[in-house]
Amino acid sequence: MTYCVAVRVDSGLVFLSDTRTNAGVDNISTFRKMHVWEQPGDRVIVLMSAGNLATTQAVVSLLDERTKAVADRSPTLYEAPSMFQTARLVGNTVREVIQSSVPAGQRADSYFNASFILGGQIKGSEPRLFMIYPEGNFIESTDDTPFFQIGETKYGRPIIVRAYDRQMSFEEAAKLLLVSFDSTAKANLSVGLPLDLLFYEAGSLQVGLKRRISYDDPYYRVVSDGWSTALKQAFKSLPDFQ
Amino acid sequence: MTYCVAVRVDSGLVFLSDTRTNAGVDNISTFRKMHVWEQPGDRVIVLMSAGNLATTQAVVSLLDERTKAVADRSPTLYEAPSMFQTARLVGNTVREVIQSSVPAGQRADSYFNASFILGGQIKGSEPRLFMIYPEGNFIESTDDTPFFQIGETKYGRPIIVRAYDRQMSFEEAAKLLLVSFDSTAKANLSVGLPLDLLFYEAGSLQVGLKRRISYDDPYYRVVSDGWSTALKQAFKSLPDFQ
Repeated sequence: MTYCVAVRVDSGLVFLSDTRTNAGVDNISTFRKMHVWEQPGDRVIVLMSAGNLATTQAVVSLLDERTKAVADRSPTLYEAPSMFQTARLVGNTVREVIQSSVPAGQRADSYFNASFILGGQIKGSEPRLFMIYPEGNFIESTDDTPFFQIGETKYGRPIIVRAYDRQMSFEEAAKLLLVSFDSTAKANLSVGLPLDLLFYEAGSLQVGLKRRISYDDPYYRVVSDGWSTALKQAFKSLPDFQ
Repeated sequence: MTYCVAVRVDSGLVFLSDTRTNAGVDNISTFRKMHVWEQPGDRVIVLMSAGNLATTQAVVSLLDERTKAVADRSPTLYEAPSMFQTARLVGNTVREVIQSSVPAGQRADSYFNASFILGGQIKGSEPRLFMIYPEGNFIESTDDTPFFQIGETKYGRPIIVRAYDRQMSFEEAAKLLLVSFDSTAKANLSVGLPLDLLFYEAGSLQVGLKRRISYDDPYYRVVSDGWSTALKQAFKSLPDFQ
């Protein structure tokens, strides 16, 4: 499994991804699941992936190669005129890769499936956030549903649903995603540190903070230990059943 | 789906189950998922079920009928000498029912599957708590894992893992299970009120409190509204990312 989550706030986009991959609990590895393409002043594109690692790596590599050999294949990530077209480009690449792995025809429920969160901004339009399915189609976040999760989505969802506020600062949003991650990692072994955290400030057209967070990160320790205590306190504050 | 949860505390056992069943989101109904067999002074047996409703109802009906026609089939729930033997009896009945639905041989991953939480006490031994799988085999709770969940287990797990304490009173344990339920019901439409709550006091050999909790239950409203506020407060109490 995997846990990646991205949230839209008024000031921009915040992304968080874990790095654990596994082929069974007895075979785990660390791989980056957050990929960034940046042309300062023109566009920032962030792609996070969950699912079959061969598929997600192939999708990322194809997207990346094609930005370097524009003559062969166009448009590339650096040429797409909008985030919507970027999402279509990624979706088509996902479809292409899965199809090549499943000769009998693409099956989204197959072992080769993968899903993606795509976010970013291209000059001349607003920051946008998409979730791309293994079938290559996708949905865009709206004010009603301003965040997307992929991988192990359940454990970490209740806190996001309850504590999200679109006026959150980047610092608060990062705290929210780290709390959500911590609940997930404590319950599902296939989700694990280190994490990749990225801030994108609306209108900046360049990557803001980009940091890898490991087990010994002091802030992560504060969140992980502090959240248990805060949760117990919150629980105590409710009146007992009568 | 379904959400049933039972927890062992020093003072006894606490059970909570929802009542929603569905055959698609456009076809939901209310069915009791908590079943109790009681012979005051001798035994209390509580069985909660998740999965295919035809299977779980058949299992409960068979167990129940056989307590009334002892000559035909023995031992019955009222005769089993221990909770372990009771769990075997339930497990065998599950196997029997699923096998009869799947003529080609029992398949636990089939559409007919169901799982159960069994708890209670028989005179002469301690209260015990079991989880029974569709295959008919089962596990027993221990001090390390003093609770079992069936159905939609993920959303409501983090709070139990963090706030459980074996010295909890029944009132605190009921609060814990209701908070856990509330997180689940807010995230999964296939889990819904009314709820069935039951306390079993260790050594009493009779059912303690047994209550149905509906949407307009004042305590449920306090927990449901209060937990959102308490969670936001807990979240605020953590320092922001720096």
